[in-house]
Amino acid sequence: MAQIVRTEDEGDPRLDDFRDLSTADRRPDRPGGRGLVIAEGTVVVRRLLASAYPPRALLGVERRIDELAPDLADVPVPAYVTSAEVMAEVVGFHLNRGVLAVADRAPQPDADEILARSRVVAVLEGVGDHENIGALFRNAAALGVDGVLLGAGCADPLYRRSVRVSMGNVLRVPFAALTPWPSGLERVRAAGFRVAALTPRADARTLREVAADGGRTALLLGSEGPGLTAEALDSADVAVRIPMSEGVDSLNVATAAAVAFYELAAAVN
Amino acid sequence: MAQIVRTEDEGDPRLDDFRDLSTADRRPDRPGGRGLVIAEGTVVVRRLLASAYPPRALLGVERRIDELAPDLADVPVPAYVTSAEVMAEVVGFHLNRGVLAVADRAPQPDADEILARSRVVAVLEGVGDHENIGALFRNAAALGVDGVLLGAGCADPLYRRSVRVSMGNVLRVPFAALTPWPSGLERVRAAGFRVAALTPRADARTLREVAADGGRTALLLGSEGPGLTAEALDSADVAVRIPMSEGVDSLNVATAAAVAFYELAAAVN
Repeated sequence: MAQIVRTEDEGDPRLDDFRDLSTADRRPDRPGGRGLVIAEGTVVVRRLLASAYPPRALLGVERRIDELAPDLADVPVPAYVTSAEVMAEVVGFHLNRGVLAVADRAPQPDADEILARSRVVAVLEGVGDHENIGALFRNAAALGVDGVLLGAGCADPLYRRSVRVSMGNVLRVPFAALTPWPSGLERVRAAGFRVAALTPRADARTLREVAADGGRTALLLGSEGPGLTAEALDSADVAVRIPMSEGVDSLNVATAAAVAFYELAAAVN
Repeated sequence: MAQIVRTEDEGDPRLDDFRDLSTADRRPDRPGGRGLVIAEGTVVVRRLLASAYPPRALLGVERRIDELAPDLADVPVPAYVTSAEVMAEVVGFHLNRGVLAVADRAPQPDADEILARSRVVAVLEGVGDHENIGALFRNAAALGVDGVLLGAGCADPLYRRSVRVSMGNVLRVPFAALTPWPSGLERVRAAGFRVAALTPRADARTLREVAADGGRTALLLGSEGPGLTAEALDSADVAVRIPMSEGVDSLNVATAAAVAFYELAAAVN
């Protein structure tokens, strides 16, 4: 059982993992970053506790820690209980979800391991927005994507905001860097995947046609503004498009991904 | 041609339509609201100028107003040019898009008019989040939805943040209130639509099956947390679900809508 520890001291050094979340640790994966994973709110904290990420501690108001008691039964870490005011002082902003957990990073499978056990993967290039990355993992988890490979220029899926927007699904959909970029796509192809690049280009095949071909598919997705680089597009086996109304901007990248994930799943169901 | 007017006076009363945007006018459609429509950024301002909403004025830094010159050729309203600093003082925050337009509301078609000329409509209940409403209109515009009907508890699509997130598509996808709620759904049915309620319920038919039935479809969508009310669900002709992985939270409402819009469009293409 987690050890319940009450504290009303905003300077308590045992709370340092939770300190100044809005300013520190913007890229925890980079040198100098703390490398910690933060979960916010009972739903995401539960998902963290059920994941492979080893928890270090929780911090929350009494009501939220109480709600999590069943999830904490086998978790031998401290759960710090304090007031909403002290919590806001430590964290640096008012947190209306009322509970946080912090964990260390877990060892991740590499790209080849993910590919070996997957039917559909997403491969991202230049998706640098933390909310888009988070939303994309949420959609991947819901719609049967087995893993995510990160090409050049992607944001860290384990950044706090990505974890929150993903509803904790970054903690359960496996991901790995795909390097070098874009020649790493050869490894994807060598693993038996067709690389399908999503693009608004009119000469691309429709999503429905490409999904109907079946087989293992790596869906290549670019950033919302500029889209995929020419190098990445050239490395794909097929260009695929979502039919859209004339004169409308393309969809948000996570939304376009959801439509494509859905179609790729529907093709086998 | 718009009349270019330079001003460096943050108190200039001619700029009052643009004043304190972050605090005023949260529900401009309600009594006491100013009833104005605000567009931010060149892309959305262009869409506003191309819409039925009568523009009143623009406010922007020189570079952005210059970019819009071709769009302003036939628009007989003042375009106030000022510095980024004065603009921030007037608006109440720093606006990195650099240009705003303000318009009056345009007369909207009513629900029956929209229904008469549509094949697919979205009908919303309790979608109270401005970003979700905006994203939903963006997805509707991209994926062939002809109109949006607003049941009880929906946010105003013309609120500033909704306009921005929609990329201006709230200005071109027609929408109307559907009252009374939910019995107004009878009018939808009387117009020849099948009302299909999107729900995570396991006993619902799959989206693919329902789309394959063809015909005019009104897709009924509820809010992200609680979903549709029992009354709305009971008023539908068919319950429809997006097949999802076990144990995953449902998709964001705008994302789920995008998947459904896509499938309803694909069924006829």
